[in-house]
Amino acid sequence: MASTQGAAGQGEASEAVSFGDRLAERVASRESQVVLGLDPDPARLWPEALDRVDSAVDDAPRAGDASPAARAARAVAAHCALVIEATAEQCVAVKPQVACFERLGAPGWSALAETVAVAREHGLLVIADAKRGDVDVTAASYAQAFLGETPTPYGPVPGLGVDAMTVNPLLGRDSLEPFVSTARAHGRGLLVLVRTSNPGAADIQEQELMNGGAVSDRFADLVDEIGNAGVGTAGLSDIGAVVGATAPGRLGALRERMPRAVFLLPGVGAQGGRVEELAPAFAPGPAGGLVSASRGIVAAYEHAGDDPATAAAREANRLRELAWRLSA
Amino acid sequence: MASTQGAAGQGEASEAVSFGDRLAERVASRESQVVLGLDPDPARLWPEALDRVDSAVDDAPRAGDASPAARAARAVAAHCALVIEATAEQCVAVKPQVACFERLGAPGWSALAETVAVAREHGLLVIADAKRGDVDVTAASYAQAFLGETPTPYGPVPGLGVDAMTVNPLLGRDSLEPFVSTARAHGRGLLVLVRTSNPGAADIQEQELMNGGAVSDRFADLVDEIGNAGVGTAGLSDIGAVVGATAPGRLGALRERMPRAVFLLPGVGAQGGRVEELAPAFAPGPAGGLVSASRGIVAAYEHAGDDPATAAAREANRLRELAWRLSA
Repeated sequence: MASTQGAAGQGEASEAVSFGDRLAERVASRESQVVLGLDPDPARLWPEALDRVDSAVDDAPRAGDASPAARAARAVAAHCALVIEATAEQCVAVKPQVACFERLGAPGWSALAETVAVAREHGLLVIADAKRGDVDVTAASYAQAFLGETPTPYGPVPGLGVDAMTVNPLLGRDSLEPFVSTARAHGRGLLVLVRTSNPGAADIQEQELMNGGAVSDRFADLVDEIGNAGVGTAGLSDIGAVVGATAPGRLGALRERMPRAVFLLPGVGAQGGRVEELAPAFAPGPAGGLVSASRGIVAAYEHAGDDPATAAAREANRLRELAWRLSA
Repeated sequence: MASTQGAAGQGEASEAVSFGDRLAERVASRESQVVLGLDPDPARLWPEALDRVDSAVDDAPRAGDASPAARAARAVAAHCALVIEATAEQCVAVKPQVACFERLGAPGWSALAETVAVAREHGLLVIADAKRGDVDVTAASYAQAFLGETPTPYGPVPGLGVDAMTVNPLLGRDSLEPFVSTARAHGRGLLVLVRTSNPGAADIQEQELMNGGAVSDRFADLVDEIGNAGVGTAGLSDIGAVVGATAPGRLGALRERMPRAVFLLPGVGAQGGRVEELAPAFAPGPAGGLVSASRGIVAAYEHAGDDPATAAAREANRLRELAWRLSA
């Protein structure tokens, strides 16, 4: 799995170690399975983030660009840094939602790269919530964008260099292969959409197939199959699955089909998922399940009546303790 | 459908006119259904694009940024501009592949915005090949990024302002709704993945369901259903479908399920699809089918032994005549 092609911002990650092993080590040392979701809405940032941008307007190197996009991107980056600072101790990873950065154009993409760097400084893994999926040549381009690098006549252009990314398997096995080979070459991981957390997941993913099982079961089998070659010494594969915390009734069956996959479990909190119901996710060990929460942590102060950082840290710690106890 | 919130770079597009009507008008006036796919690989750009970047190094406003990403992005933008200049007369739209720009980071996103602007200057519609799909709040963010704008404390940030984008329907109906409402509010369109052009499409999309039909048929029914409210006077809906030209045997059945959808037909040329087999796509009229070709046009000179621009124009015109004759 060793590679001479390093991606940018990989921090302390050794490329010789598989994603599953890196994750297991990190979960154990931090005693946390909490993934901090970062879905920054420029209209709902922490007030301190706006203050920071205002007060930095005179001395920041980019203060010259006063376009709404550039200013909003600086505020988004400041917000994400504040949220990470407040909650990093309780978390094992951050999960930036790429859409929220992309809507700010080029400055938004820079804010995303900054956020990745801040997360690494705090010892956190980074999972890009990108949900990309395309035909093979395009999938290879997305893999370069997030996990690898792009050869150009001017030298290699490093990608975001995240530890893992979410991918959409609708286009089938050949569309996943470029992601798998790039991830594996760099010691990174994939989290494949198997059963999402939204009500509409029932429309397609839970449809029963003539050949048996639901569409989501078919995805699960695919995850297990392509993950077999990437199982580390901790017993976890580098190909994991996104399984919504909102459908706990499906967790056990999906865990049986994917005994070595890391489950990323979105939907806790605002969407109605409860940590207490996620036990099957942890069957392969404490790193078998990653509990993802976004608004539940970041907007906790809106209900708690406390300052944003204190309320976020408290909620992140509450989730951390719940999940850790469940997985012990 | 009128909206006071204009997106950037909309050019001459009137927001009161539906996407289907705008497309029908454009296809008729240009006598073309050819969509120029732009999938720029920095390692395989037209030589003239590299020359332009080299010679502009002294006077370009951004020449100060000599990072590989910035230089490669300038070369990619120059390449796309050259390809558009060479072939615009034969085409009705361009289809930039977002992955190819995204892998160059923030400068890549700027190159994408530049390419959109150049296409508009040449009277072409723009279809962002993004294949986005996510839970509703995130889908709304992607819709802002490509079709709308994002409210921020510093004023609205315009999105890319493309005329249409491709979306992935795996997450179900509720995940498409934010795209539909944003598109409709701005007179834009969506092209929903129904049956993709790659071999792996068979893995999931062609699986038969217990309730009848294949997964792709379910997507087709969804497209027809949500498209009903967006049918213009030309009889075409603002919700279209991506149907691979590599599976002509499925075209007729899918057309029956989606009688008013615009079909975007990728896979002609390099992937083996043949224009001559696409007749069912044009059942609702000449704008019912859009024939997308990328490498077949852009890399035509590698086989033709002519200069890149001449070979590209010749191949684009060949496809244009084939499709136009078929739809007459």
